[in-house]
Amino acid sequence: METQTGPQRTYGFGTTVAAPYSATIEKTRAALKEQGFGVLTEIDVKKTMKEKLDADFRPYVILGACNPTLAHQALQADLGVGLLLPCNVIVYDNGDGTSTVEALDPEAALGIVGDNPAIVTVARDAKARLERVVRDLGADARHA
Amino acid sequence: METQTGPQRTYGFGTTVAAPYSATIEKTRAALKEQGFGVLTEIDVKKTMKEKLDADFRPYVILGACNPTLAHQALQADLGVGLLLPCNVIVYDNGDGTSTVEALDPEAALGIVGDNPAIVTVARDAKARLERVVRDLGADARHA
Repeated sequence: METQTGPQRTYGFGTTVAAPYSATIEKTRAALKEQGFGVLTEIDVKKTMKEKLDADFRPYVILGACNPTLAHQALQADLGVGLLLPCNVIVYDNGDGTSTVEALDPEAALGIVGDNPAIVTVARDAKARLERVVRDLGADARHA
Repeated sequence: METQTGPQRTYGFGTTVAAPYSATIEKTRAALKEQGFGVLTEIDVKKTMKEKLDADFRPYVILGACNPTLAHQALQADLGVGLLLPCNVIVYDNGDGTSTVEALDPEAALGIVGDNPAIVTVARDAKARLERVVRDLGADARHA
């Protein structure tokens, strides 16, 4: 099974896997759990666009991932940091049998908070975990 | 009833109102609706911290606000923008009878996407609407 690097973004990183959309969402949830992230929110973008605008959109979900310990540390360092939580992970269908998983780069997102050593530390930790999530999903696809 | 400017942040703006927490959440929802934002997600931070870490935290909610038309425009301009949606609005209890409402600055958040004219336009529109939400909540408090 082929795997490829997902789109290169300044604000996120990801992987494209040769697996169907629904299966990829489940694998993503499992990989997040493995790294200590629960999924606190879930937005079905395709369904929302259909309901609110009667617009057609590809299968696309926004998962709000939260590592409670890191979130607590960040909130104690800066009460406003809830404006940047949870950390989003998106999964979408490419329409060709492949799906893409991307994670928001916590260093880029929390970077807008400014210089706060505690936030920088938390962002680095969260980023390392999310990078492992993406790497595991890519490796999983290669070995499937 | 007194009102005051909320904390000054590089990544958000808000207002502190002399109203209880629960009432402020309801007023915030109404003000968001007035400006075309639905609340797609809601995270009760106090409850989550208690459940996951057995830690005590002040009453604090993260509302995920989404204007479907603006979100659709942004997603069409950049598929990865779901990593930065919805736009968070937080409400928290100051423990002295006042509550603070803060909105993420969409220009700061979407600014990390880089130079994309369509995203810049959407971010500006969303920011103007959220500024009206915060202004209305402040004015409401002054006239209460």
